[in-house]
Amino acid sequence: MPLTVWTNVSLTPKESAWLAAEIAPHVLVVAEGTASNLVSGGPDPRCQSANIAFGQPAVEDLLESVTLRWTHLTSAGYTRYDRDDLRESLAQRGATLTNSSSVYDDPCAHHVLAFMLEHSRHLHGALDLQRQANWAYADMRARQRVLTGQAAVIVGYGAIGRRLAELLAPFGMSLVGIKRSVSGTEAIPCFPIGEIADHLGNADHVVNLLPASPSTERLFGSSLFAKFRPGAAFYNVGRGDTVVQEDLLAALGSGQVGAAYLDVTSPEPLPAEHPLWSTPNVVITPHVAGGVQDESQRLLDHFVANFRRFVGGEALRDRVL
Amino acid sequence: MPLTVWTNVSLTPKESAWLAAEIAPHVLVVAEGTASNLVSGGPDPRCQSANIAFGQPAVEDLLESVTLRWTHLTSAGYTRYDRDDLRESLAQRGATLTNSSSVYDDPCAHHVLAFMLEHSRHLHGALDLQRQANWAYADMRARQRVLTGQAAVIVGYGAIGRRLAELLAPFGMSLVGIKRSVSGTEAIPCFPIGEIADHLGNADHVVNLLPASPSTERLFGSSLFAKFRPGAAFYNVGRGDTVVQEDLLAALGSGQVGAAYLDVTSPEPLPAEHPLWSTPNVVITPHVAGGVQDESQRLLDHFVANFRRFVGGEALRDRVL
Repeated sequence: MPLTVWTNVSLTPKESAWLAAEIAPHVLVVAEGTASNLVSGGPDPRCQSANIAFGQPAVEDLLESVTLRWTHLTSAGYTRYDRDDLRESLAQRGATLTNSSSVYDDPCAHHVLAFMLEHSRHLHGALDLQRQANWAYADMRARQRVLTGQAAVIVGYGAIGRRLAELLAPFGMSLVGIKRSVSGTEAIPCFPIGEIADHLGNADHVVNLLPASPSTERLFGSSLFAKFRPGAAFYNVGRGDTVVQEDLLAALGSGQVGAAYLDVTSPEPLPAEHPLWSTPNVVITPHVAGGVQDESQRLLDHFVANFRRFVGGEALRDRVL
Repeated sequence: MPLTVWTNVSLTPKESAWLAAEIAPHVLVVAEGTASNLVSGGPDPRCQSANIAFGQPAVEDLLESVTLRWTHLTSAGYTRYDRDDLRESLAQRGATLTNSSSVYDDPCAHHVLAFMLEHSRHLHGALDLQRQANWAYADMRARQRVLTGQAAVIVGYGAIGRRLAELLAPFGMSLVGIKRSVSGTEAIPCFPIGEIADHLGNADHVVNLLPASPSTERLFGSSLFAKFRPGAAFYNVGRGDTVVQEDLLAALGSGQVGAAYLDVTSPEPLPAEHPLWSTPNVVITPHVAGGVQDESQRLLDHFVANFRRFVGGEALRDRVL
């Protein structure tokens, strides 16, 4: 009997036809209206009666459905699905939830490294000088750094952190990971999140990849910033809610934090009047770290590959629940 | 008998004392006035009568001296010393010339990668949007790229290119090197400079690391730019004279070259009225790719390590003549 695959991914007619053909003879049901990775779709009875949900379904549908066996998210984040009632409900039915982590790890790691090198080579300052047609050789030369021999702490060391550590391997840096559960088999030395304060003081670069959760909310505040090596650079490609932005502004003002590279803020969009926009040594990108060429097709390819595994009874990639 | 080491490096009193102590019992002679890596010092009779010259000595002194056995440059570039009469003169006396390539390879490779990632993540555009407090999610997201799977041609594949290829290894790019003499033992596929036009059309990124020489002067002109894959990015961390800047401006204007990242120009400093300063999709840094923290000390350490090899009769590092 054919499976029913419900989706609320915003598909072009061409993508929709392609996806339907890829999963045939199984049946594609496309929801009315559209969701995005940032905004969940509303409840949909057709989702509840499907076998597979693909996109950003409403949590209520996942809780109430008796037919859904697998949900595949188009995002890497899954905060709104990370709740005990859903975890239990899925477990009872033998249902699973996967995300699109594999699609986003690589671009997110690229984005962090782009920020780290922008910082090291002071490209932010170079653009200001360029606008003034100012060949400021001595000033710029004195600010140049290499990552070689420097130290970085990767907070929230998961799939993105592993890819970042791979990209950083040839630089000869000292890398430390901080994570919820340390297995001891990580590629770099890792320590539990409770010990984070012990490891910040050695770092030239503090990379925050933490997801939003009650335990990470407002983690980076004045007491942690006080543990930074004075002048260290802070990067946030995790979630804006993990940072107390007033405390970050104060730490930037005093020089305790030397620079902040933020792809996420709280709230998003960051209001036009927010002081972070114009604080010196702050670089902001608008939640684009996961962006990649052919993003839609990569998401579809990832789903289809997992769909084949599902149909073939193989383990799914990027399972989170 | 102690050797005499002449230097026109601009040393602080502390550095001068340190260097004198490191080479003792050999004798340090510090020239009046100062030179820099960009401006050679004038002729100095004390250079001609020394055994070793360290810094940026005048070519005449090297040609006329009968005592100089080794010259160590504080730069990676050695264009003004790369001439047949000096080559012959040094060979006749069994004298050698070394440069500071080992000090500059790593920062130059970092600078190129910083440019490549700035391009991929469109950070240049992000800074413009930040000035307007504009959270332009959709625009920025659509411009995000990863290097993974892209192709780069490294023109002038030498010590910097080797380091760049090391840094790029985890990205999974397709890399090709172009160089004067191909040995066949290079870490990436390499082709002779005469075949450059055959390899440009496949590249998303064309990295120019060529030194200045009669054979490289104005190499990148309209005929080579026409061979680029339309919209490819061009990087110049070699020398400005290798590019016909008017042709680069035309290629940028037509979109044939998608963006140019220039650490070197012709002339330097680039005049304030030059159109490159304000051409869209051009990023300029003022000849700082070799910049690195503790640059002076790294140059001194490199010289002292080579000095120990010289005294011990070992092969010198970074020999170029």
